[in-house]
Amino acid sequence: MLGPIVRKNRVRENQATPARTTKSGERMRRFWRTRAACLTGAVTELQRVTVLTGGVGGARFTRGLLARLGEAYPDGDGGTRVAVTVVVNTGDDMTLNGLRVCPDLDTVMYTLGGGISEEQGWGRDEETKRVSGEIAAYGRGWDWFTLGDLDLGTHIVRTELLRDGATLSEATEFLCRRWRPAARLLPMSDQPVETHVRLAGAADEHPAGSLIHFEEWWVRYRAGAAASEFVQVGLESAVPAPGVLEAIRDADVVILPPSNPVVSVGTILAVPGVRAALRETSARVVGVSPIIGGSAVRGMADACLATIGVDTSAQAVALHYGARASGGLLDGWLVDEVDAPAVPTLAAAGIPARAVPLWMRDVATTARMASDALDLAFAAGERA
Amino acid sequence: MLGPIVRKNRVRENQATPARTTKSGERMRRFWRTRAACLTGAVTELQRVTVLTGGVGGARFTRGLLARLGEAYPDGDGGTRVAVTVVVNTGDDMTLNGLRVCPDLDTVMYTLGGGISEEQGWGRDEETKRVSGEIAAYGRGWDWFTLGDLDLGTHIVRTELLRDGATLSEATEFLCRRWRPAARLLPMSDQPVETHVRLAGAADEHPAGSLIHFEEWWVRYRAGAAASEFVQVGLESAVPAPGVLEAIRDADVVILPPSNPVVSVGTILAVPGVRAALRETSARVVGVSPIIGGSAVRGMADACLATIGVDTSAQAVALHYGARASGGLLDGWLVDEVDAPAVPTLAAAGIPARAVPLWMRDVATTARMASDALDLAFAAGERA
Repeated sequence: MLGPIVRKNRVRENQATPARTTKSGERMRRFWRTRAACLTGAVTELQRVTVLTGGVGGARFTRGLLARLGEAYPDGDGGTRVAVTVVVNTGDDMTLNGLRVCPDLDTVMYTLGGGISEEQGWGRDEETKRVSGEIAAYGRGWDWFTLGDLDLGTHIVRTELLRDGATLSEATEFLCRRWRPAARLLPMSDQPVETHVRLAGAADEHPAGSLIHFEEWWVRYRAGAAASEFVQVGLESAVPAPGVLEAIRDADVVILPPSNPVVSVGTILAVPGVRAALRETSARVVGVSPIIGGSAVRGMADACLATIGVDTSAQAVALHYGARASGGLLDGWLVDEVDAPAVPTLAAAGIPARAVPLWMRDVATTARMASDALDLAFAAGERA
Repeated sequence: MLGPIVRKNRVRENQATPARTTKSGERMRRFWRTRAACLTGAVTELQRVTVLTGGVGGARFTRGLLARLGEAYPDGDGGTRVAVTVVVNTGDDMTLNGLRVCPDLDTVMYTLGGGISEEQGWGRDEETKRVSGEIAAYGRGWDWFTLGDLDLGTHIVRTELLRDGATLSEATEFLCRRWRPAARLLPMSDQPVETHVRLAGAADEHPAGSLIHFEEWWVRYRAGAAASEFVQVGLESAVPAPGVLEAIRDADVVILPPSNPVVSVGTILAVPGVRAALRETSARVVGVSPIIGGSAVRGMADACLATIGVDTSAQAVALHYGARASGGLLDGWLVDEVDAPAVPTLAAAGIPARAVPLWMRDVATTARMASDALDLAFAAGERA
């Protein structure tokens, strides 16, 4: 019953917070349009949703979100009339053999565009590795990172575009013309920001205290080499890519999907201006826990959380993001049913939470999760 | 009977032309060493052979040459103790999808290294084309030029090396560490020199008079679009790669194999300093006709020759190179048996010629051709 709730909530939200929505002419117009629609009985509805995400988990969540929006707000052409923007972490990006690889952008693009390897969760379906075998035969490969042949086509085209002067946003838009992901994909920044990991101890050729690329730590060491900190190289000179701040400010709902809160969502939040935009937006900001019953849904988020001193629990991650009412980011937080005991604790901390099934078994169950996230957003709007 | 002839000829050559061999200390040392060997009865022999070549024809010839030298001058380890240097045309090089492709260098490297597609004469064996299919799916492919997956590994590694600051010579040396081609491969120049073709008439999107890359003319139009001239873009600022002039000057024999005399050997000759080095070397310079019975052995050399106003005949190509005795390059020229009538004409023009079988059916027949070329060089030495 998403549609009716949204219509009601949008009105109440705007009535409840006129000061916030008058910050710009556009918001003023939206406020009066919504208010007029309410007074005249016209229908208002969800128009813009923005997701801040890393790779696999967030990509799958967004696919479910699009499915849910297609049901509730169909465009008559198999999609949804809700404009969905996905701001994607680029901290995992790296240059391998001279080719620019953007793992999270590609995972989101392939997942939403129908080209993903479902089994892996990343990379292309029916992949082969002939080229990387050749590169290795020249002694220039990376035994901890393989570039699939099909995936390489994407990297080659992107690298060519970037070398010809395109920004990463432009290159991403170009690549998406092929995949038509049904959402607008924006890199968090057009400037390279590469997450590095400071090793607490020595690992292979790396002495203790040295910085290695996040992907090396993640893929080669499976996050098993003790880390003392994450460093986003390039962050100080990075700005949000065109459209990122607008997508946050103009959204009705912003979702932090079940992505790594440290090196995926956390890296996006670290881009200058993003956190402020989230605090100031009139959108409801809700998150979906990437931790279920004390374990990461996928990947090795526990090692990342441990590095920044946060417990691996749905509750701790929510408190790490913080309640919006007290300077944090969240208007709401979904935890899995097994984490239901956290709900009252979070509520007491100013974060409205609900316990619902959070395992993304397939698109249908993920769509239900997305529906729950939207419902929570609207409920948060009601309380506002 | 290559060995004995060589021994005798090396001595006679040096005795006959002491002035030429005293041009440098090294040549002086070689002269006295050879002379001393003669006087004491010690054996002297062929030490250095240099080949100036383009792609398929010259690569196959060089493979036969190495086989022949391995028979006549074995190194005891399956190879030859003769140092063979192959100076390779880079005028066909181009940047495709941001990757630096060097068709002739790769053809020679794969042919001598055992990785060539025998059927095609270029590219890798058991090739697939998945990556180029992906690039095409993004609308960034070249329907007239396909990059095989295995071949792409070479281009990716080379491009990475070049972008990291390596010269083409250094990148070539690096790639050859894998293929071990049993000869030293040198690009003609480390500076990009790209042969372009000026179209006499319009062709597809190209208006008449426009310049297109040689590979587009060769591969896309199969040399069928009328050309008015060849232009080597970058030639004016190019210098021979390190070792090229030395390889010509210090050789005992320089061979122009059955390569395209216009856009392969011709382009090497156009690099400033190369032609002068050929004229000045004490080496015997012999060529093998790429034309048999009025047709190109392979490829579309006739269209290239027509463009520069040279007949497609073994005789005309020899006269185009010219007799060394009268300011040209050749001390000898091999024609096929069907072109035997050209031999007396060429002799009259100062170019000693022989008619022998020139079809490179397999390595054994090609080795016999190479043996004939060396014999001709030594005979030329006898007459000098």
